[in-house]
Amino acid sequence: MSFTERLRQVQINQNSLLCIGLDADQSKIPAPLRTREHSVLEFNRRIIEATQDLVCAYKPNLAFYESLGEQGVTILRETLNFIPKSVLTIGDGKRGDIGNTAERYATSLFIDFGFDSATVNPYMGADSVEPFLTDPEKGVFILALTSNPGSKDFQRLKIGMVPLFEKVVRTVKKWNTNQNVGLVVGATHPRELQRIRRMVPDMPILIPGIGKQGGDLKSAVRSGCDRHGQLAIINASRSIIYASAGGDFAEAARAEAIKMRDEINLYRDV
Amino acid sequence: MSFTERLRQVQINQNSLLCIGLDADQSKIPAPLRTREHSVLEFNRRIIEATQDLVCAYKPNLAFYESLGEQGVTILRETLNFIPKSVLTIGDGKRGDIGNTAERYATSLFIDFGFDSATVNPYMGADSVEPFLTDPEKGVFILALTSNPGSKDFQRLKIGMVPLFEKVVRTVKKWNTNQNVGLVVGATHPRELQRIRRMVPDMPILIPGIGKQGGDLKSAVRSGCDRHGQLAIINASRSIIYASAGGDFAEAARAEAIKMRDEINLYRDV
Repeated sequence: MSFTERLRQVQINQNSLLCIGLDADQSKIPAPLRTREHSVLEFNRRIIEATQDLVCAYKPNLAFYESLGEQGVTILRETLNFIPKSVLTIGDGKRGDIGNTAERYATSLFIDFGFDSATVNPYMGADSVEPFLTDPEKGVFILALTSNPGSKDFQRLKIGMVPLFEKVVRTVKKWNTNQNVGLVVGATHPRELQRIRRMVPDMPILIPGIGKQGGDLKSAVRSGCDRHGQLAIINASRSIIYASAGGDFAEAARAEAIKMRDEINLYRDV
Repeated sequence: MSFTERLRQVQINQNSLLCIGLDADQSKIPAPLRTREHSVLEFNRRIIEATQDLVCAYKPNLAFYESLGEQGVTILRETLNFIPKSVLTIGDGKRGDIGNTAERYATSLFIDFGFDSATVNPYMGADSVEPFLTDPEKGVFILALTSNPGSKDFQRLKIGMVPLFEKVVRTVKKWNTNQNVGLVVGATHPRELQRIRRMVPDMPILIPGIGKQGGDLKSAVRSGCDRHGQLAIINASRSIIYASAGGDFAEAARAEAIKMRDEINLYRDV
C-alpha cells in the first residue's frame, strides 16, 4: 500500500488529522520528571500514551534529539518503539544532500529508525530526493512554503509569473509516481495553501505553524483538506506537549489534543 | 578573529587550500581495519594523522555518522578530538529549519561538537540561518550552486534575469556583517564559480565536486580563489581517503593529498 493510501486509512481509522510534534526540549520538561535520568524518554512515553488514540501521526523534530548526543539517538529510537503501528511517524529533519549522501539519510531514517516518512528540502533537486522515494510505503514531505518569516526570502521569489514554491510543487508532483510524495505548507499562508491544494488534489500536505507561530486552524483545515476531508496533517507541537508544566502534563496534553482534534473535525465538515 | 580571517590564517600557515571530506563509510574501510570494533574511528584517526600538515580543513559528512547510530555520535566527537587546532572543521549536514530549531542545530554543531563551521541550506530564509551567524568566529557555508545534477532543478531557475543561486549569493552577502558567511559552489560549474567569486571577492567558498563528481581542479582553483589566491576551499573526499583499499591506506591518502595540495598551489600561482 502506498504511503498516501496508508495515510488515508490511518486518518479514517483514527478519525483524526492531528499530528503531535515531539520537540522534546529538556529545559521544558515538567519539573516532576526532570530528576529522572531519561526524562525526555519518559516525557515522550507519557505524551504518546495519553494521546495515541487522538492523532494520525507523531513528528519528532530531529534537532532536539541530535542536541542530546548519543543519548538522543537512544531516546529517539525508544520513543519510536512506544508509538503504536496504528499511527504514522514523520522524521522531521529537512534533509537534503547529493545522491550518495541522501541515500544514507534515507536508510538511517526509514530502515534504522523505521520512520514511516520524512521531511526533505528541495533546494538540491531530484537526485537529493530520489533515495527517499524508492519504497512506496515510505513517504516524503517536501518543503514548499514554510511557516517561518524567512519563507519570503526565496520561496516567494517569482520565476516568470510563478513563485518558486509553486515551481517546487509542480516539479515534485512529477516525482510522485509511487504515490508517496507530500508537501510541507505552513498554516501561516492560508491563501497559498488553498492554491496548492488545488494543484495537488491527491497529495498529503503537512501543515505546521498553528499555535505559537500564529497560523489559523480553521483556514488551515478548510484550505488544506482534499475533497474527502483528508490528507491534510495538522501539526501542533509546543501548544500540546507543554500544555501544562506540572505533574498533570500528560492529562493536559490529552485535553488539548482532544480539543484540537474535535475542532479540526468540526471544520472538516465530513 | 572572524571566521574568514581565521581561514586566511590557516591557509597561509598550512600553505594549503585542500579540505579532506571524512565520509567514513563502514563498507569501504580497508579490510585490515574492519575487524576492529571502532574501525571508522581508527580509520579517521590514521587519515588525520597522515594528512594534518597538508590541509586547511576537514569536513565530516554528518549523514555517514548519523547512519551509525549512538556509536556514530561518539565516533564523530572523538574524530574531532583528533583534529589539531591548526586546521578548521566543517560540519557538513546542510541543515535548515525554523528559528528555534535552527538554534538547536547550531548549538549542537558549534558548541557540543565544537565544529568551526557548518553547511546550511538557504531555502527557509534568514531566520533559519541566523542562529549560525551570531558568533563571528564560527563560519557558515550556505548552499548556492551545488555540485550534483539536481542543481539544475531549482537553483538555476531565473528570477527575472538572474538565476536563483545568484539571488541567494546577493542575499547572503547582506547577512555577512560578522565576516563569517561563506558559500558552497560545486566545481562542476566553473563559469558560474567565476561569476560568483566576482560578486563576493572576500567570502570563503567551499568547492566540492572534484574527482568522482567530475569537476576540473584547475578551473576550480583559478575561478574560486580571491585576489590573494585564498578563500577557496577545495574539497576531496573519496579520491583521497579511499586511495588504497589495503593496509597502506593512510600512506596512499597522504600521497594523494600531497599531489592534490601541490597541484592546487601550482594553479594558485601565488
